Order: sequence, then structure tokens, then C-alpha cells
Amino acid sequence: MAGNSRDPGRSVTARALSVLTAFDIDHVRLTLTAIARRAEIPLATAHRLVRELEMWGALQRDGDGRYAIGLRLWEIGLLAPVNSRLREVALPHMQELCRHTHDNVHLAVRSGLEVVYVEKLTTPRAVPIISRSGGRLPLHSTGVGKVLLAHAPTTVVHEYCERGLERHTAYTITEPGRLGRELQSVRSRGFAQANEEMTLGNCSVAVPVHDGGGSVVAAIGVVAHSARADVGKLVKALLPAAEGIRQRLVELDRTELDLLSR
Amino acid sequence: MAGNSRDPGRSVTARALSVLTAFDIDHVRLTLTAIARRAEIPLATAHRLVRELEMWGALQRDGDGRYAIGLRLWEIGLLAPVNSRLREVALPHMQELCRHTHDNVHLAVRSGLEVVYVEKLTTPRAVPIISRSGGRLPLHSTGVGKVLLAHAPTTVVHEYCERGLERHTAYTITEPGRLGRELQSVRSRGFAQANEEMTLGNCSVAVPVHDGGGSVVAAIGVVAHSARADVGKLVKALLPAAEGIRQRLVELDRTELDLLSR
Repeated sequence: MAGNSRDPGRSVTARALSVLTAFDIDHVRLTLTAIARRAEIPLATAHRLVRELEMWGALQRDGDGRYAIGLRLWEIGLLAPVNSRLREVALPHMQELCRHTHDNVHLAVRSGLEVVYVEKLTTPRAVPIISRSGGRLPLHSTGVGKVLLAHAPTTVVHEYCERGLERHTAYTITEPGRLGRELQSVRSRGFAQANEEMTLGNCSVAVPVHDGGGSVVAAIGVVAHSARADVGKLVKALLPAAEGIRQRLVELDRTELDLLSR
Repeated sequence: MAGNSRDPGRSVTARALSVLTAFDIDHVRLTLTAIARRAEIPLATAHRLVRELEMWGALQRDGDGRYAIGLRLWEIGLLAPVNSRLREVALPHMQELCRHTHDNVHLAVRSGLEVVYVEKLTTPRAVPIISRSGGRLPLHSTGVGKVLLAHAPTTVVHEYCERGLERHTAYTITEPGRLGRELQSVRSRGFAQANEEMTLGNCSVAVPVHDGGGSVVAAIGVVAHSARADVGKLVKALLPAAEGIRQRLVELDRTELDLLSR
């Protein structure tokens, strides 16, 4: 993207954005040198861009001179419909689910060929899990992922299977034919289950969140210890939560919901 | 900021950032024309920048052709220490508080001369309030704000008072001298209280969240109906939550905590 001399504006914006992309969950604080290296831009360019981004509040600098994503960028990010519409509406229902189940509760959307976790609530009694809000996990090996894939366009399922179904445990479904039958069953039963398919010992159960028009815009799920998970009970707790969220989403403009899941 | 012809890079980055600034909680979806007007840039420039920001995922477009903040910017924003460090650590303690009190629970930091709400949990029984995660409110008329102001450098308190203390209700403290005595009392008692000072009928109680070094990095508070708020009980519920968060923050690097409150 960078270095298009015929359109310097494009190139500068792309470089400024590449500075932001240098940060990820394993790199939340970076030195200027690390930013330049990870963004693949010259140190002098990085210096100028970082200074501008810091002045605006997209970056902030700690006492050691390392940079992190700034408060202002976080605030602006929260305006994304996935937060300002979906998460805000779903949060009380997720808390209620957490209170009932004492397990991990997830809200997720699909972004391309991945699950994006919008929110994760947990309790001291819940089994430890690797998800986090803003994190991504595979579609075929998680409860919320199966729900989202089951309700995605067929072309998405094909593309997903063509890339190959990565094995995470001995129980991960890695044959496209079997995944296809599984997704059919998710649609007919109205919920998805993933038994130790992502992490050994963990069982996840998830249901779709519909909008007013009947489209699936998100998935809500619980991750419990596989030994003590009562799937029927979890589904029974999840369905009214999904319905509660749907009722609030109905109040939103149809076009806003287009933005939630892509 | 824009239009510095001696440094086109600076100007382009500033313009790209001004596109993002066009969005706020009352303007989460904007047409291209509205973006150009609010960002004060020519329509052609807005068109080019918006296209680049959309390609990268900082903006997304709905079916009506209006733009919103994109999923990718939201994801990157979540890497800010205020979320990835503070909120993630505090969330289970906030849920616990919510379970006990059935009231609104807030986590907040100070940004300059304002309270920034990092997270807000609520319950069906809680009194309706105007705060939201990512939102800002005054320091002198909210419980969390009083805590943060009481532990801010004296220069911040002076600057805040010099700007004038806005009246929100008949009970808002608007005299600097009285506010000074109130902040002294917040420090000596170890908690703050705001009785109908922001909104009639609402009472907020808040305590400081310390880091390992003893600095106040955040405030945690409860907003209840003023008629049924038992301040002693709320403080008793808040203190162990703040202590629980402190214990987790101790595990973090000192320099990371510099980034939480400014």
C-alpha cells in the first residue's frame, strides 16, 4: 500500500495505519524502533507519524518511552456498531447468563473467515479459556463459530473449507463433509455444540442471535468444563438471552445491523 | 492541523484522523457529505480518505451508503491499556459488585479534566443513568469523578476550578472552596459520594483503585437510587472490589500503569 508516489495522500494514510497495525495483543507496547520494523517503514517516517498519532491521542507513550494504543483511539473504536449497538444491548443479558451458569459467556460475530469475540464475561468458577474481547478464533471448532458458519452464505462455507480445517484437538472436525452435516444439524436443532474441539476439557454451546428481519447477526454461547456441562440446560438459558437481545435489536434501524456481521 | 504545505505527511495524517473525529456518540453513522462537513475537509479529499480508511477497516459502509467506525479500528482500540490492562482485570470484580448491589457499576479513569467511563455494568433493577463505556462526564459532580479529582495533582484541581464548576442540579457543588473541602474529605474517608449532584434522584458512591505503588489509577463506583442507597453498605462492597483489582494490577509492569490515567 505504501510508496505510491503518484498519490502521496494514499501512501501517507496507509503508512499511518500501518503504525497502528504494528500493535497486537502480544505487542501492546512497542518502542519506536519496533514500530518502524513491524510497520516496515523507515525510522524517520515512523518518528514523524508516531509523533502525529501521539499528539492526536491515537498513541500514548509510557515512562520508558514505549508506545501503546491511546485512550482516544479506544474511545472512537467504541463507536463501531459492534460495540455501540450490539455489545451495549447484549451486555445485561450476558451478565444474567453468567449469574445463572457461573461459566464463561461469549458474544461473537463473524468477520470474513473468523469468529470475532465481541465480549467475554467470566466468573471465578468458570473454566479458563483463551478467548478475549476483540480476539479471533476459528469458525469450525468453537460453539459460536459453528453457529455463525451455519448461518453464513454457502460461498463463505466453501471458501472456509477450501482453506483447510485446522486440527486443534483430536476431536476437531477436519473433514468438510462432516462439517457440512454438522452445520445442517446446527440449523435444524437451533444451537451448536463444540466438545473439546478447540481445547481439551472444554465444551461450548451457542445459539444464534437474530435481528428483527430474522437474519443471524451474532452468536451467544457458554463455555463450560466438558465434564459438568449440561447441554440441555445451557441451551435453555441461552435461548431467552438471544431472544432478549433480538427484541432490543428490533428497535434498531435495519441498515445499522448490516454493519454487525460481514 | 490540516493544510501545512511544508509537511504534507503531517497534513494528510491529520486529515485522515479528522475523518475519524467526525464520528461521536450522536453521530455513529454519517454520509460522505456529513463527514466532509464535520471534518472540515473538501468533499474530494474526504472521498479519497474515506475510501482508504474503509479499505483498511477503520470505517465500514452500510446498505444506505452511510459510514460507521469499522470493526478493525474497534479491535485495535481494545489494545489500549485502559482496556487490555485495566478493564479486563476489573470486569469480574465489577460483575460481582453488580450481583451484590443490583445497581449500576462504573469503572472510570481521569483524562485531563474529565472522567472517562471505561466500563458500565447495569441490571434490570438499576436506576437509569446517562453514562456509557467510552463516555465522558464532569469530575466534580460524579462519585468516580470526585475520587479521581481528589487524587489528581493540585495543578489539575486548580485548573479544573478555574474553568468554572458547572451546575447540573441544585445540589451540584459549584464553589471551589467547598469542592476543596469535599476532596479533602474524600481522601480522609477513602470514598466519595455524590448525592443528586449530576442527576436528581441518583446517588453515587465510589472508591479509588490503587496500583501496586499506591497511586490511584482508576475509580470504581456504584450509582443507586438516592432513596434506597445505603452508603455504608455500598462502600463495604466497593472496597474489596478495588482491593481485588489492585492485587491483579500489582502483577503488571509499573510503566504500563503510567498509561492508565493522565
